[in-house]
Amino acid sequence: MFLQYEPNKQNIIQAHDWIQNRIHRTPIFSSKSLNSILECRLYFKCENLQKVGAFKYRGASLAVLSLPKSDFKKGVATHSSGNHAAALALAAKTRNIPAYIVMPRTAPQIKKAAVEGYGAKIIFCEPTLKAREEALAKVVAETGATFVHPFDNYTIITGQATCAKEIFEELGELDYLISPVGGGGLLSGTCLSAKYFSPSTKVIGAEPKGADDAFRSLKEGVIQPSTNPQTICDGLLTQLSEKTFSIIKKNVSEIITAEEETIISAMRMIWERMKIIVEPSAAVPLAVVLENKKKFLGKRVGLILSGGNVDLNKLPWD
Amino acid sequence: MFLQYEPNKQNIIQAHDWIQNRIHRTPIFSSKSLNSILECRLYFKCENLQKVGAFKYRGASLAVLSLPKSDFKKGVATHSSGNHAAALALAAKTRNIPAYIVMPRTAPQIKKAAVEGYGAKIIFCEPTLKAREEALAKVVAETGATFVHPFDNYTIITGQATCAKEIFEELGELDYLISPVGGGGLLSGTCLSAKYFSPSTKVIGAEPKGADDAFRSLKEGVIQPSTNPQTICDGLLTQLSEKTFSIIKKNVSEIITAEEETIISAMRMIWERMKIIVEPSAAVPLAVVLENKKKFLGKRVGLILSGGNVDLNKLPWD
Repeated sequence: MFLQYEPNKQNIIQAHDWIQNRIHRTPIFSSKSLNSILECRLYFKCENLQKVGAFKYRGASLAVLSLPKSDFKKGVATHSSGNHAAALALAAKTRNIPAYIVMPRTAPQIKKAAVEGYGAKIIFCEPTLKAREEALAKVVAETGATFVHPFDNYTIITGQATCAKEIFEELGELDYLISPVGGGGLLSGTCLSAKYFSPSTKVIGAEPKGADDAFRSLKEGVIQPSTNPQTICDGLLTQLSEKTFSIIKKNVSEIITAEEETIISAMRMIWERMKIIVEPSAAVPLAVVLENKKKFLGKRVGLILSGGNVDLNKLPWD
Repeated sequence: MFLQYEPNKQNIIQAHDWIQNRIHRTPIFSSKSLNSILECRLYFKCENLQKVGAFKYRGASLAVLSLPKSDFKKGVATHSSGNHAAALALAAKTRNIPAYIVMPRTAPQIKKAAVEGYGAKIIFCEPTLKAREEALAKVVAETGATFVHPFDNYTIITGQATCAKEIFEELGELDYLISPVGGGGLLSGTCLSAKYFSPSTKVIGAEPKGADDAFRSLKEGVIQPSTNPQTICDGLLTQLSEKTFSIIKKNVSEIITAEEETIISAMRMIWERMKIIVEPSAAVPLAVVLENKKKFLGKRVGLILSGGNVDLNKLPWD
């Protein structure tokens, strides 16, 4: 199902059926000490423990499974240097089809190694949007691979929606469910799952203040560009797309921004108290709770720990 | 049951019944990438996700529940600056009884804060064995608190044995089960649970080469002192005691040592690939597998990740 329309309830249920044996059903953790400090009940969905260390594997798996038979063997392509690239590479590898990843020459060695480790073919380009799009168009033309956008793609959004579906299956209705927001794939999927599986739950997008384009977009009613974002949350630098914005606009309760230093504290709290590794982007939901304690007092709050891919040689508290 | 004898099968079963609503039943993780690198099936028991971040909470909980009624309200005491102190402090706190922890003045601030955070009373002493024992004797005499040794105590050993019991309950018989060894509380408990619940499983003690007193003790047949141990595994500096050695001697398959640099690599592999935080001591079992790949080829191997308490400002790869 390469969806051409906003996914409905049945699409999400079917997507989950399709991918559930290929993804981890990640655990949901809670911490007595954090609950007692923040005086609410927090439930952390550990997508840092998902394959490739990020929720992105959900959408990528679904995209690979959804390829039409005629194009299947030609594989998939994308431009990304982050978790989506690794996810698509692994999803392709498990089905023995090629993955072509366009990446700027300047991408950190650690990210190149990760994608290569999953067996993808990397096409290097200059670090400009134009060079990236040209390189992608070229590889798609040459190989016939299907381009899988990291978030402006209804199949990807459907895959990411399965994360919140699992949360509601285990916890029932929550007062709030907080997801980080970058390009909006996870947040839009989360909004849809809440709409279909837990309509009383308010979905909040959590965004670094230094990259608050989603916050501004929602306020203005049209997509605002992410220009010169300043944040350590390397997963949240992109701006919303047409598809994600249209879903988020209709369904999100609000977008709340958090300061960089709160994000770093939140990340460290999760490492120290929960003994799990999360990347900065994944700590933004907890940062939002830390900065808005009153709002969440006594509430049942889900938080999506979106990923755990961090360079251990460059920790933000070093 | 403050046991005066080596625990039998029934003692371990009863202990588990007693404490199971007070401890976490920690998850068992596996990693496809590690299995594929090492060509065996590894099962990691995540005691880093136990309360207070270490298996020590099992024994400490059992000890507190086992206090005779007459002594209960007087509380517990120990000398330690590590995970046992934190565990005993929290176990006492949950029952509203005092915990007195004798700690050298020189203990790291982070450890003092942890124990204080769990509500224990700290008694500082000079950093010598004599000062420590005197301070402990004094506080016990003054308060009537029951001394709970970190490992030379059959009740503690029984509590630690519940960890391996959970492993066998979930995984059935394994080829090997590897536990770190310091004072031997965890290893002796693991040996007993294997003996009673999975007699075909070979139990291996994993020890840093720079602190190989258990290895030497087993070879010599008498306890060898741990003199000037050189290792980053701060949880494994102590030597075996009479009670732990007598159980280990009879039941362990072997003790295998690992180099410091392998321990650090193993720790980093667990952080990077499994996205969980373990302390250096907890990485020694994987280090043993890394250095003895042939031995474990194709086998089903359990590894106890004993704890996750690390100073994030002082990582061994910095």
